[in-house]
Amino acid sequence: MSSPFGRLFRITTWGESHGGGIGVVVDGCPPGIVLDLDAIQAELDRRRPGRSKLASARQEADRLTILSGLHEGRTLGSPIAISVANTDARPGAYEHLRDLYRPSHGDYSHEAKYGLRDWRGGGRASARETVGRVAAGAIARQLLTERCGVEIVARGEQLAGIDASLPDPASIDRATVESTPVRCPDPAAAARMIERIEAARAEGNSLGGIIATRAGGLPAGWGDPVFDKLDALLAHAMLSIPACKGFDLGSGFAGTRMTGADHNDAFVMEGDRVRTRTNRSGGVQAGISNGEPLLFRSAFKPTPTIRKEQDTVDRRGNAVKLSAHGRHDPCVLPRAVPIVEAMTALVLADCYLRQLAVDRR
Amino acid sequence: MSSPFGRLFRITTWGESHGGGIGVVVDGCPPGIVLDLDAIQAELDRRRPGRSKLASARQEADRLTILSGLHEGRTLGSPIAISVANTDARPGAYEHLRDLYRPSHGDYSHEAKYGLRDWRGGGRASARETVGRVAAGAIARQLLTERCGVEIVARGEQLAGIDASLPDPASIDRATVESTPVRCPDPAAAARMIERIEAARAEGNSLGGIIATRAGGLPAGWGDPVFDKLDALLAHAMLSIPACKGFDLGSGFAGTRMTGADHNDAFVMEGDRVRTRTNRSGGVQAGISNGEPLLFRSAFKPTPTIRKEQDTVDRRGNAVKLSAHGRHDPCVLPRAVPIVEAMTALVLADCYLRQLAVDRR
Amino acid sequence: MSSPFGRLFRITTWGESHGGGIGVVVDGCPPGIVLDLDAIQAELDRRRPGRSKLASARQEADRLTILSGLHEGRTLGSPIAISVANTDARPGAYEHLRDLYRPSHGDYSHEAKYGLRDWRGGGRASARETVGRVAAGAIARQLLTERCGVEIVARGEQLAGIDASLPDPASIDRATVESTPVRCPDPAAAARMIERIEAARAEGNSLGGIIATRAGGLPAGWGDPVFDKLDALLAHAMLSIPACKGFDLGSGFAGTRMTGADHNDAFVMEGDRVRTRTNRSGGVQAGISNGEPLLFRSAFKPTPTIRKEQDTVDRRGNAVKLSAHGRHDPCVLPRAVPIVEAMTALVLADCYLRQLAVDRR
Amino acid sequence: MSSPFGRLFRITTWGESHGGGIGVVVDGCPPGIVLDLDAIQAELDRRRPGRSKLASARQEADRLTILSGLHEGRTLGSPIAISVANTDARPGAYEHLRDLYRPSHGDYSHEAKYGLRDWRGGGRASARETVGRVAAGAIARQLLTERCGVEIVARGEQLAGIDASLPDPASIDRATVESTPVRCPDPAAAARMIERIEAARAEGNSLGGIIATRAGGLPAGWGDPVFDKLDALLAHAMLSIPACKGFDLGSGFAGTRMTGADHNDAFVMEGDRVRTRTNRSGGVQAGISNGEPLLFRSAFKPTPTIRKEQDTVDRRGNAVKLSAHGRHDPCVLPRAVPIVEAMTALVLADCYLRQLAVDRR
Repeated sequence: MSSPFGRLFRITTWGESHGGGIGVVVDGCPPGIVLDLDAIQAELDRRRPGRSKLASARQEADRLTILSGLHEGRTLGSPIAISVANTDARPGAYEHLRDLYRPSHGDYSHEAKYGLRDWRGGGRASARETVGRVAAGAIARQLLTERCGVEIVARGEQLAGIDASLPDPASIDRATVESTPVRCPDPAAAARMIERIEAARAEGNSLGGIIATRAGGLPAGWGDPVFDKLDALLAHAMLSIPACKGFDLGSGFAGTRMTGADHNDAFVMEGDRVRTRTNRSGGVQAGISNGEPLLFRSAFKPTPTIRKEQDTVDRRGNAVKLSAHGRHDPCVLPRAVPIVEAMTALVLADCYLRQLAVDRR
Repeated sequence: MSSPFGRLFRITTWGESHGGGIGVVVDGCPPGIVLDLDAIQAELDRRRPGRSKLASARQEADRLTILSGLHEGRTLGSPIAISVANTDARPGAYEHLRDLYRPSHGDYSHEAKYGLRDWRGGGRASARETVGRVAAGAIARQLLTERCGVEIVARGEQLAGIDASLPDPASIDRATVESTPVRCPDPAAAARMIERIEAARAEGNSLGGIIATRAGGLPAGWGDPVFDKLDALLAHAMLSIPACKGFDLGSGFAGTRMTGADHNDAFVMEGDRVRTRTNRSGGVQAGISNGEPLLFRSAFKPTPTIRKEQDTVDRRGNAVKLSAHGRHDPCVLPRAVPIVEAMTALVLADCYLRQLAVDRR
Repeated sequence: MSSPFGRLFRITTWGESHGGGIGVVVDGCPPGIVLDLDAIQAELDRRRPGRSKLASARQEADRLTILSGLHEGRTLGSPIAISVANTDARPGAYEHLRDLYRPSHGDYSHEAKYGLRDWRGGGRASARETVGRVAAGAIARQLLTERCGVEIVARGEQLAGIDASLPDPASIDRATVESTPVRCPDPAAAARMIERIEAARAEGNSLGGIIATRAGGLPAGWGDPVFDKLDALLAHAMLSIPACKGFDLGSGFAGTRMTGADHNDAFVMEGDRVRTRTNRSGGVQAGISNGEPLLFRSAFKPTPTIRKEQDTVDRRGNAVKLSAHGRHDPCVLPRAVPIVEAMTALVLADCYLRQLAVDRR
Repeated sequence: MSSPFGRLFRITTWGESHGGGIGVVVDGCPPGIVLDLDAIQAELDRRRPGRSKLASARQEADRLTILSGLHEGRTLGSPIAISVANTDARPGAYEHLRDLYRPSHGDYSHEAKYGLRDWRGGGRASARETVGRVAAGAIARQLLTERCGVEIVARGEQLAGIDASLPDPASIDRATVESTPVRCPDPAAAARMIERIEAARAEGNSLGGIIATRAGGLPAGWGDPVFDKLDALLAHAMLSIPACKGFDLGSGFAGTRMTGADHNDAFVMEGDRVRTRTNRSGGVQAGISNGEPLLFRSAFKPTPTIRKEQDTVDRRGNAVKLSAHGRHDPCVLPRAVPIVEAMTALVLADCYLRQLAVDRR
């Protein structure tokens, strides 16, 4: 099932959407970190559904319980087990999907893999699995903040084709992002995005978009030079998020149309620190951080669950019509923002620990 | 250094650009496979420089030697060690770069990581490291072809902003791709791309582009549902290739602007086989192959090495001017095509073996 | 913390002795296995304390809860999360140990590693951690039984210097082992062992011993030929059990005194099956099972916790006297039997899955 | 094939006994280490055959070539690839074994695993595979010596039932061990061991024995508390050596007959350092080093290849008589000493790097 992620800061998530609960085990968190449990809960709250009319109506309190790994407020260096109950599971609501393959969902591919599947709300493929990621990511983030001063801010950059007007990403903090329900720091664009989401919900349709992430404060030297390049690990992390279909770093796809002379980031001195004049590299050169902020984008497809009638087939090969009436988000983007941040923190915490073993200075 | 890649079909590459040679150890290839050594050599020949005026003038025969793992023409199940000599290494040619950080190269970030670096032609960060990947990928491909009938074809899709006119990807075979030196199956676009590369070379500049890949013939059920999604592994593999800055699958970044009703791939029956009417999912749903062809793109930035004068700094913090005169490709795209295919084959061979342990039917 | 164990059938245990609970996540169990939950509970019951005057008086019901990975009685292929509450934790009972290093315990070494420790009953180093192993091992055992017919039986072979008289190991089944509270199938030896344990308890002392294991029914071909030899994996597994200090396979340490001519296991045919006339190899040759039963021994030191007064030091470097009065087993052997069996099952389940990827016949 | 060993200091060996050569890739060695190549070669010389009448007559120069990972005498942090040619391979000499299963060798079990095997001298199962381990171990040892002051000394402790009279292990250095061809520091016992080996050779028989290892100088805190206990990793490493059938640490199997009061290692202060009065724990408590020397033993069975006639079967199931006439050691013990040291160094180097990621002080 390959539920583990990371090499030294390693997490294993577990749980089905409508089973007994959902959770994560965080293995490899260094000892002695004072954990702020409220901050972890706050991240879960950012992710959870039922908080706005833009998101799924499923009501989950998503209260975390920490079962191990903490003593007198500090991490022990032992595995941190976290569980969250499923309190608003309604497996019966999925009975009509039991023998159907929902288009662009994992129903068919999972069944091809395993020979059976949990048809209750997507089972393991549900975005509910990301609860564990967000909790673990909040721990990784606290480690990164306390030890290294890393700051990670993701934001809605495009939704349903509406592009946010980009101010300097360095000026955007989390409060600005949280100030709109679509987590887009451009208020005008945000207003239009909200309008589009409400229209999509009304007509039983769904929307996609792009999330941009900036991670500042990390030193030069993180990431490995060959297969585990920092950008390769980030790409892996992003594409592992449900509905994510693309990733690029720095100038990314657009940069392929430039020439080298225009694209290269000239090195310049800033005091005694080596900087780059531009940051088309997105903070990573030859797989290793160069001390500039990480800048990358993740593409999210429109939510596959829609109320509009669709063609599909059932397990016996009959053509059928499907109008889904489960609870779902008309656009995953707003709730994906904390998930993107969590996965970023997990990658960076792992790179940080790996670099400790390379550079003992 | 994290040179290993893969979990069951696992490779470890080694070697610096201008050191004693370059190579790979392939661990986990199943026993009893009749290896076609000429086909492996042919892949190395596709990758090697010095074959066209569009590529680096470095003359490397890149003749492979297989040191272990084969007996009487068949794989033993033991590690297959492959080495390739560096015959045209010219470390002296890089003496002028010894104390400089080349813009948008790994010189600075590697030195920040390790405290020292091999300044001879990029050392481990050189694209020469991919020799081992291509050799290993050719073995993976033979395994996939013999056991599963998988076919992998990559091609230049855009170069310097020139978009190939896309015929049906299913109709493109390797011979068509190889028919132009830029490995673009649209002859008119290819001609313009070649012109642009020649112009860039003349002015000491460089170019980027996009490679599209299609992998057909794989069954439904490959890939894992959470962190090691098939598309996440492919993204990891692509971003691990030097100069790759982006990845998307199926409709990818463009699909973020569609609605769910337009984007979803309806399931339909084709005889007794479940197919999708469209393939915006790119052959992967919820991380697992659905039996449709894999379709994905990889973005390559313009080669950072250019002859044009650039600003940079040296190791002592002095601002300096740099005009690189090493041998390099004005555009990596043509030679990246076999590398992309090799990394694809490595991911798929690993997923194939992993699935054997899930599904013993 | 390296809490994961196994490569394809992989478990992660979590939990401290006197924290919020204890548990395990089993990742990689194949889909479609009908799990017998009572059989898992029965293994936990074999392991748990408070069931006899020979063991710790700690009263733990050790009722398992399965939180994920099961649907309609069958494994889904997704992670199986299991938790067990700590119901009789008495952290206060360890207050007097807060600043002491108990001799031959992990108090000092853990604190040296982490800079802090959970002083409540050994924390993570407590044998209570093995609850998760036993639950996971019971799942592995069901997989092995259903798919391959493997039978694993461990037994007390020596305790406090009293050697069991060895009948043919093949004739011993679990019922015989369970017929004495020391899990020794030689009733006369068992009676003397029990006497010795009672005497040790009375004087505040403790005892050690040796467990012998036989695993029959596995086919030839499991295990890897170099580093992950089957016997190397078993040795790793056994030495990972608290208090285990030694392992040998087949003739083991005694066999070092024989000559090759006496020691070699001659091959003979039994019908159309290749067998060995003797089994000094213990079922493994050159790291790979040869189809004969696995036979190996694990050495357990006397329990380090004793009531008798001992010399030690505290965290400030003062010499102090210690008389431990926590609850503990005067001899770990009887309760270690199900743990040894669980670790054996985990190794074999992993080898089974790994072999599926080698041999698809 | 699972040829990799280690998690951060990770090696992959490759090569068959009578194939194109033998070698290793060392991944994860930190940068900036000045490597003494003569010291690596010296370890290979200690291991190689043909140097004494006590060992195999195979003449192999075993000259190492370092292909990558070094620049100006220092490690780069990149993979160190090492190859050694097979110069005295005589595959034809094994033609008579092509269809036979040699007793207590891996011929049958390997063929059961892979469906085919390299019958030339054991192929991958040959002790020749350990060339790569010894080279990699010599690098690990240099890292440990330079960074931590660790000293590793193994020695013959028992051979053919002849026990060396044990002086204080702390007083034995490598020169003393090397002073006898059986690598036993008790000259009287050594003389008798040599006599026994010569007699065994004369009659076409073989012998086994026990190697004891002491590793001093390592700090408290290495090893992980649960599955990757330091002693579990050492047991794994030892049992992965060809012909090794047992491992114990500290008091080991003998300690199982003691009581806790006699067995426990009392803590005492030595200046400001916490020490233990005795070292029955063998330097490891609850899986983690406690700062005392590591003390452990490895049991080696008598060499399975003997000239004396034996019963066996061939691939078609016929009973046959076998008198092996390949070149082999009548006792592996003397040549196993540097292999044991190499595997010890590999485990410790990995634990050292892993601890860097836990404890950044």
